[in-house]
Amino acid sequence: MAHRSRLSVILIDCPPDRMDAGVEFWSGALGMRAQHWGNDDDPYAILDGRVGGLTFGLQAVNDEARIHLDIESDDVDAEVRRLEVLGARRKEQVKSWWVMEAPSGHVFCVVGPQSDDVPADANLWES
Amino acid sequence: MAHRSRLSVILIDCPPDRMDAGVEFWSGALGMRAQHWGNDDDPYAILDGRVGGLTFGLQAVNDEARIHLDIESDDVDAEVRRLEVLGARRKEQVKSWWVMEAPSGHVFCVVGPQSDDVPADANLWES
Repeated sequence: MAHRSRLSVILIDCPPDRMDAGVEFWSGALGMRAQHWGNDDDPYAILDGRVGGLTFGLQAVNDEARIHLDIESDDVDAEVRRLEVLGARRKEQVKSWWVMEAPSGHVFCVVGPQSDDVPADANLWES
Repeated sequence: MAHRSRLSVILIDCPPDRMDAGVEFWSGALGMRAQHWGNDDDPYAILDGRVGGLTFGLQAVNDEARIHLDIESDDVDAEVRRLEVLGARRKEQVKSWWVMEAPSGHVFCVVGPQSDDVPADANLWES
């Protein structure tokens, strides 16, 4: 069965003590208002609007500052298998998504559809 | 004088020994053909086409695997000063661009216009 995927999210991962400064800076740098954050159960601060077709947000993480990308798909399992064939490996399943590591050493996530305009611009993969 | 800026480039920074695997993986993952790379003077492999309005590429770096963003501006000096006021600091000037560090701990670059469609979608900053 065929499935679709595309790059969908840029996430700025911030150590918790830099999250406030990070939200203020990136919001100002890109001229996009940040949604409220600060709930322990919700470590995300998504900026209103989109950059190109991508969602831009920040996430508080108990780790070093880095950036990771999300690939969204209408079939997460099929997309994970496709990316494994390309050399990525599964690291961890979190709720409905998979954390993976690319052969380049970069961690990224495969997630379900993140916006209403999927599958516009998404790649179609026959399998 | 006013100037403009916007987020323009996502760069996957790869240790040199992972660059080939990185180019092959990200090209396949996103369904975008990679331009030739391998010239010592040119550490970049830009993928053909754009993701949303953004350029997506890889760069061989003598450093750890990470991702960095470029902000393009029609006035690099004015944009650097604006971002300093927001809390970023200059790290290094390389050719025509500045490497900066955000208060969140993320390294990014401020570069001149990267495509012909500037200033579409760019923010206008009065100063």
